[in-house]
Amino acid sequence: MENQQTKGPAKMWGGRFKQPPDPDFEFLNESLRCDGRMLQEDLTLNLAWADALQGAGVLTAEERDAIVRALEELQTEWEGKRPPAAAAEDVHSFVEAMLVEKVGRLGYRIHTGRSRNDQVATDTRLHLIKEIAILQGRLAQMVKELLTLAESSWGVPMPGFTHLQRAQPILFSHYLLSFEAMLDRDFDRLSRAAQAANCLPLGSGALAGCAFPIQRRRLAQALGFQEISRNSLDAVSDRDFLCDFLYAAAMLMMHLSRLATDFILFSSREFNFLQMGDRVTTGSSIMPQKRNPDAMELVRGKAAIMESRLLGMLSLLRGLPSGYNKDLQEDKAPVFAAIDELGMILRVVRCALADTQIKAEVLRRAAADSFLLATDLADYLVQKGIPFREAHHIVGRVVGYALDREKELTSLTLAEYREFSEEFDADVWHWLNLESCLERRSLEGGTAPSRVRQALEEAQRRWDPRLPEPTAAESGKDTV
Amino acid sequence: MENQQTKGPAKMWGGRFKQPPDPDFEFLNESLRCDGRMLQEDLTLNLAWADALQGAGVLTAEERDAIVRALEELQTEWEGKRPPAAAAEDVHSFVEAMLVEKVGRLGYRIHTGRSRNDQVATDTRLHLIKEIAILQGRLAQMVKELLTLAESSWGVPMPGFTHLQRAQPILFSHYLLSFEAMLDRDFDRLSRAAQAANCLPLGSGALAGCAFPIQRRRLAQALGFQEISRNSLDAVSDRDFLCDFLYAAAMLMMHLSRLATDFILFSSREFNFLQMGDRVTTGSSIMPQKRNPDAMELVRGKAAIMESRLLGMLSLLRGLPSGYNKDLQEDKAPVFAAIDELGMILRVVRCALADTQIKAEVLRRAAADSFLLATDLADYLVQKGIPFREAHHIVGRVVGYALDREKELTSLTLAEYREFSEEFDADVWHWLNLESCLERRSLEGGTAPSRVRQALEEAQRRWDPRLPEPTAAESGKDTV
Amino acid sequence: MENQQTKGPAKMWGGRFKQPPDPDFEFLNESLRCDGRMLQEDLTLNLAWADALQGAGVLTAEERDAIVRALEELQTEWEGKRPPAAAAEDVHSFVEAMLVEKVGRLGYRIHTGRSRNDQVATDTRLHLIKEIAILQGRLAQMVKELLTLAESSWGVPMPGFTHLQRAQPILFSHYLLSFEAMLDRDFDRLSRAAQAANCLPLGSGALAGCAFPIQRRRLAQALGFQEISRNSLDAVSDRDFLCDFLYAAAMLMMHLSRLATDFILFSSREFNFLQMGDRVTTGSSIMPQKRNPDAMELVRGKAAIMESRLLGMLSLLRGLPSGYNKDLQEDKAPVFAAIDELGMILRVVRCALADTQIKAEVLRRAAADSFLLATDLADYLVQKGIPFREAHHIVGRVVGYALDREKELTSLTLAEYREFSEEFDADVWHWLNLESCLERRSLEGGTAPSRVRQALEEAQRRWDPRLPEPTAAESGKDTV
Amino acid sequence: MENQQTKGPAKMWGGRFKQPPDPDFEFLNESLRCDGRMLQEDLTLNLAWADALQGAGVLTAEERDAIVRALEELQTEWEGKRPPAAAAEDVHSFVEAMLVEKVGRLGYRIHTGRSRNDQVATDTRLHLIKEIAILQGRLAQMVKELLTLAESSWGVPMPGFTHLQRAQPILFSHYLLSFEAMLDRDFDRLSRAAQAANCLPLGSGALAGCAFPIQRRRLAQALGFQEISRNSLDAVSDRDFLCDFLYAAAMLMMHLSRLATDFILFSSREFNFLQMGDRVTTGSSIMPQKRNPDAMELVRGKAAIMESRLLGMLSLLRGLPSGYNKDLQEDKAPVFAAIDELGMILRVVRCALADTQIKAEVLRRAAADSFLLATDLADYLVQKGIPFREAHHIVGRVVGYALDREKELTSLTLAEYREFSEEFDADVWHWLNLESCLERRSLEGGTAPSRVRQALEEAQRRWDPRLPEPTAAESGKDTV
Repeated sequence: MENQQTKGPAKMWGGRFKQPPDPDFEFLNESLRCDGRMLQEDLTLNLAWADALQGAGVLTAEERDAIVRALEELQTEWEGKRPPAAAAEDVHSFVEAMLVEKVGRLGYRIHTGRSRNDQVATDTRLHLIKEIAILQGRLAQMVKELLTLAESSWGVPMPGFTHLQRAQPILFSHYLLSFEAMLDRDFDRLSRAAQAANCLPLGSGALAGCAFPIQRRRLAQALGFQEISRNSLDAVSDRDFLCDFLYAAAMLMMHLSRLATDFILFSSREFNFLQMGDRVTTGSSIMPQKRNPDAMELVRGKAAIMESRLLGMLSLLRGLPSGYNKDLQEDKAPVFAAIDELGMILRVVRCALADTQIKAEVLRRAAADSFLLATDLADYLVQKGIPFREAHHIVGRVVGYALDREKELTSLTLAEYREFSEEFDADVWHWLNLESCLERRSLEGGTAPSRVRQALEEAQRRWDPRLPEPTAAESGKDTV
Repeated sequence: MENQQTKGPAKMWGGRFKQPPDPDFEFLNESLRCDGRMLQEDLTLNLAWADALQGAGVLTAEERDAIVRALEELQTEWEGKRPPAAAAEDVHSFVEAMLVEKVGRLGYRIHTGRSRNDQVATDTRLHLIKEIAILQGRLAQMVKELLTLAESSWGVPMPGFTHLQRAQPILFSHYLLSFEAMLDRDFDRLSRAAQAANCLPLGSGALAGCAFPIQRRRLAQALGFQEISRNSLDAVSDRDFLCDFLYAAAMLMMHLSRLATDFILFSSREFNFLQMGDRVTTGSSIMPQKRNPDAMELVRGKAAIMESRLLGMLSLLRGLPSGYNKDLQEDKAPVFAAIDELGMILRVVRCALADTQIKAEVLRRAAADSFLLATDLADYLVQKGIPFREAHHIVGRVVGYALDREKELTSLTLAEYREFSEEFDADVWHWLNLESCLERRSLEGGTAPSRVRQALEEAQRRWDPRLPEPTAAESGKDTV
Repeated sequence: MENQQTKGPAKMWGGRFKQPPDPDFEFLNESLRCDGRMLQEDLTLNLAWADALQGAGVLTAEERDAIVRALEELQTEWEGKRPPAAAAEDVHSFVEAMLVEKVGRLGYRIHTGRSRNDQVATDTRLHLIKEIAILQGRLAQMVKELLTLAESSWGVPMPGFTHLQRAQPILFSHYLLSFEAMLDRDFDRLSRAAQAANCLPLGSGALAGCAFPIQRRRLAQALGFQEISRNSLDAVSDRDFLCDFLYAAAMLMMHLSRLATDFILFSSREFNFLQMGDRVTTGSSIMPQKRNPDAMELVRGKAAIMESRLLGMLSLLRGLPSGYNKDLQEDKAPVFAAIDELGMILRVVRCALADTQIKAEVLRRAAADSFLLATDLADYLVQKGIPFREAHHIVGRVVGYALDREKELTSLTLAEYREFSEEFDADVWHWLNLESCLERRSLEGGTAPSRVRQALEEAQRRWDPRLPEPTAAESGKDTV
Repeated sequence: MENQQTKGPAKMWGGRFKQPPDPDFEFLNESLRCDGRMLQEDLTLNLAWADALQGAGVLTAEERDAIVRALEELQTEWEGKRPPAAAAEDVHSFVEAMLVEKVGRLGYRIHTGRSRNDQVATDTRLHLIKEIAILQGRLAQMVKELLTLAESSWGVPMPGFTHLQRAQPILFSHYLLSFEAMLDRDFDRLSRAAQAANCLPLGSGALAGCAFPIQRRRLAQALGFQEISRNSLDAVSDRDFLCDFLYAAAMLMMHLSRLATDFILFSSREFNFLQMGDRVTTGSSIMPQKRNPDAMELVRGKAAIMESRLLGMLSLLRGLPSGYNKDLQEDKAPVFAAIDELGMILRVVRCALADTQIKAEVLRRAAADSFLLATDLADYLVQKGIPFREAHHIVGRVVGYALDREKELTSLTLAEYREFSEEFDADVWHWLNLESCLERRSLEGGTAPSRVRQALEEAQRRWDPRLPEPTAAESGKDTV
């Protein structure tokens, strides 16, 4: 590789090029800053590839052994490290160069029968599978904290809202479990993204397939893939699995943004339903009394950015001519940013939930708002035989009457009630009651305490097996 | 319901309102133009609900029978029709009003124990499940046409591209099958969206659950749902299944846009690889010689719009306070537009594929470009024992030499080759050959004819069972 | 034009086509449903073009007169109407067909020297300019209502928020005027979009320019354009003006969405700062006590959809080969939807503002929260000579002390204050006072009543000239 | 500020906080990595603020002088450097800490009367104004290269395309100038974004205005702002100027993506219209013959990402409660990334244009395609008196006839022409001619050589004054 005319790092190509790259272009083109984080995956891939080349008769056993030894040394030497910026055009060139440094000219054999196109696709899939597992562990830890809060706040009622207007009373634990339901779907979407990634492209060459007798299924097994790709042209330009991941991430962040909006509201002076902890709030540089729910605001803001990453990826892929195009290099930056940000957000929300102090008295008082029982009042009339629509209309007029007089529904007299319908009787007071209102909603999914207890227990059974091994949880930190 | 003060259609509420809605607001708020297409689903739901109310003791057997009879009449009367614009606030109000017209005051009982919140979620899920099945049938028909083209163009080679530069020869059928791989993932994503929709929210009330002893699992069975929702608050505001569908639709369109880009290119005068049919091209109002690939351009353009629908939905949901908010009403317009457009696009692309005439001679000539064999030339040196990286470099210089002299790789002499490496020998000509180049790529996923044949047969076995029943295919048209 | 083989509407092309279009494709391709709303613009364009063709010697004076007469008749006949669906491929074909119906073969002369490419670009620009003027008028009417509310609520304080936490007291009018500032920028952005549209593409032909001696500047004048396009290839594919409009619309909706979020919050039971009117709120089908701020929720939701329209357009244009591509046909649907929706939203928000009842007492009470004066307490120490950062820290501790004891800052004793700093003295009570706190913020832009009064008057002077003529305001309705 | 309980960097707040921030939250919350690049702007702001505080009587002349001296030292010491990661919570805290290090307790006075809310808004505006000027200079340099290419390729015709089908001949220079027209609008949009940024928020405090008698107009003058903000609440949360910039950047990238698509096509083997230079292309790691237009592909890909940044920002802002919210902190990362990427892209495209070799012979041959003259053939009949629509139809049939026989329009005999219309005569050959076809399109904006020459000269006059000073051009590099 004499005559390398560029001042930059060595290139894997260039035999027929007479001028070195423009430095700005070289900077744009260089992907090591970004794909360098897949160094271990690329080493793993090279190890499996060396075996495969021996199987194909391209390498002798001795050659294979020398290469494997060198790669294993590199695995150790670079454990937890990233390649220095600008050390090579990309992680594949970097590994080849390191290998050549260790084993000399023999290293030039490693790129036989493969292309950076199938190589980068394989590295990225390996990396994503690993990162999704870590994210799912953190998600489980976060949900676990949510369930702990649902347990510790057991029995506290709150006004349920629609249109941000008080609607009907629910248990605070029921409210929290609504997020468990969302996050369970998110866990599932992450699993599907990992499943989508779980298919080996290596052996597809640049686009047309590999011309050496590689055992692709054995290669897949060695690298932990369950499937092998079915069409070489598709294999090198398929980025669906990245879209699937960004979609799952955007949905998860969307759900967290709704939790964040609620908690920001609930910790306002006006709602005053809960107080967020010191660890996830900040003060003001000018207003000494402030306690700002910054963590939750950042969750909400970052959800917008996450959504834009998915969008950028879809737009990137749309209308591309088939086969590999360099545009695809732009796929990794948003995905890696998504992984890192999501990983951090999940831990911050976990911390936020752990520190949340709910104000049981305020919630109870708000839930005791008698107008929240208007639906039950209509239901009362229904069981007296009045069609619901008429009952609704009657109660609507009762509500108007009470509001005009600034009275609670519970403080009207029976006589007043009977002005609106003769069906009202003394048993109405039993219906105008927070506890009975909660208990009546006892169908599957309802807010009756017995149901919510059952739902909480099911949720615990669902998420416990998803928790990471304790050590993994601690050491997860380094990926940020 | 005396005293209805609004001039517009009857409302289900209003007991305590003193002024009618502003007409502009009423227009914005009215959703019948949009949700009217779910009339049959709403009737089906009402039928099942009448049974459930009888089960819960709210309706007598006679009342239930009268209501069921009326609803069945409505099913027939409105078969294939939509409610007139502005006939009601939404499809639920419309059905209640129609029912009251038929059975009088009894009709006012139907809304017992439910809310429009759980009702609209249920209708939308029923509708989406039905529409996805139709779309999947059309997708299968379209892919079938793709496979037919792969069959009819059997054996024709073409230059495979990366970076829109000719790279290596592949079979045209191999090229087509790369889209089968993408579309198979899309079929799967559509199935998952249908699966996500397959969960009954009805019985969740407005947010807190239902206070009447409805049998939710029986209800689910009656309506064909496999699961019931697990948390009432989540059930009324969960729109994940719509996102899943829009995501699947955006991905499918993205893949079709890549096919479209290719076909637009391939039918240009410069590529001239194929001619699109009269049925999917247009002329120019000013240039009489033009044959414009409009259908494919519209596919590409509509892919951008489809992607924006997903985005709009994600943005709509982000940061919403939990529970139902009216913002959610904006969910249906993009989803219905996506269904209709996708349905039409799938048929148009099917038609385009059916009419495509490939220009076998042009493709063959392009595939015979000797520079496409440069990789094989390097592989030749590899099997002579030269490390690939060096072989690549040597061939790079050969290529530069040939280009400078405007010669093909196949027209250099052996002597010229040996200037670059002594490993070149007479057997090099065997490697510099289109057929052997194709055949060497015989791993799974490669472009070797034997492999492609196998892949084609597998694809046929995969898609045949997905084809709609002949009659369904014909009658599918009315949903557009 | 004998031998028209298609069953659909007449085409302007087709001389060399042997098969009629596929019906699905024809439906996709037909743009009359969408561009039919530009019928009057297309007639206007044709009138000016007839003159231009006479000027160029293509038409005689008699021919021009006959055509002009026919077009003027059409203007009258179709006043306020749209072409029937599927009556032609697009509005241009429709007009040519109508013209031929009136003047016979002479009508076939009108398309001389032009293309549908420059024609549709011209129509769209004319249409957008007209619609933006209407939208700006409605925006001015809406802002006028905002200023009226600022006037009628004069003097009422409220807590200003950052991070949704109470921060410092401000005037409610000051709060409202913050939106005037945003909407003024939006007005300006709409003006720029109109300015961007104000450039005549007609005379650019299909892409290469016009080959007849048309006077383009005279044509521009006749159609009311200030400029003529400078490059024919750019002129037929330039959609920047549509992007500029969608961007302006998205920004305007974004600002309105922030107003909507505030008003939804403010009308919650917890904030209770204001009540929205019956005309823009709705009730619940199940909960008789509800008053839901639907109008504002729809504003917020539609802002998400508006943003997605801009995105769809940008994505549509990205990466298109230069010159006209059929993808561009997808430009009009989102733009027209944006115009209609924005027009309606502006009127609904105007109505919402007109009916808003602020709850002065609640606002006053909330503004009297003594912790809002913490910054002023720090400023007090500053003017005593303590560096701000230290003062901030001291007050931070005072606040903590008061909160721990559940006291207001105003109910601590001077002795207690002096525990934290000896600089506290009796004059501190003057600083711990809502009125003086407001008045001290008297710089330009501040919330001091005198400043706000001035800002309000400037705003009135700014917007009054932007109000539409009374009649235009009334008749504006028909464009929805 | 004793008792700082957090292990992280010093905070400007915290008086009443009892627990330090969670480390993950602290990392998310810390903005110095991002806003550290505005260090010089923050120092400039502090200098002006020290003057203003003296004017307001908060600082004595001596205090002001000491602070100014220290800040000027900091300006020098940090010239071209960024603060070390994690050195402070944000750039404002960093500067205050540095100042305190130099001047002791006096430094604690600098934050008087201001908030980080108005401070960061001011810094960002100063930074954006500076960066836009640099970007505009680079844009001018790039366009200059485009004009140079238009000059050096003078007289070369090419086929103009619509629908990627050859349409009519144009000059290659005319084609290039279509981009000049787009980029001129982009230059203008960048100017408007700079104009939008040119308004001073400082003096707005946290939200309510400033309580010290600062001279805001003098402050604006000192910092180079033309206007001062009009409403304090708007001033601290207005991010319109960032949206305006991201919109301008997205549009510019969209236009460049169209150029990129063309150049990728044009440098394909099939088009072969031009060759891109070694400095902006790359080879393949496996296919030695490849020359990939990576630079242009990256431009196209990065345009998708740029569009997503705008989208993320709009989505971030939508629905936010008014006033400052922490979500706004997410505004800077996408803007700074946009600045850096755009700056690099503009230089790379400039380089690509400088190195482009057009293949005049290929272009000429393609432009000589006689079917490109079909429109002129129709025009020929028009000037013989045949209505255009009929002429179009006649020529359509001629074209079909020629295609069926695989003949050029120029190789049909007059007798054959007269089969289609008796109006064809010997003078038809004059019309069937590339040069006359070009020359006939001589209206403003047309492709006639005389017009294009004029347009080229105007473009040169337009862009020359926009070129940066030579030195600025060279030194611009450091901002990347």
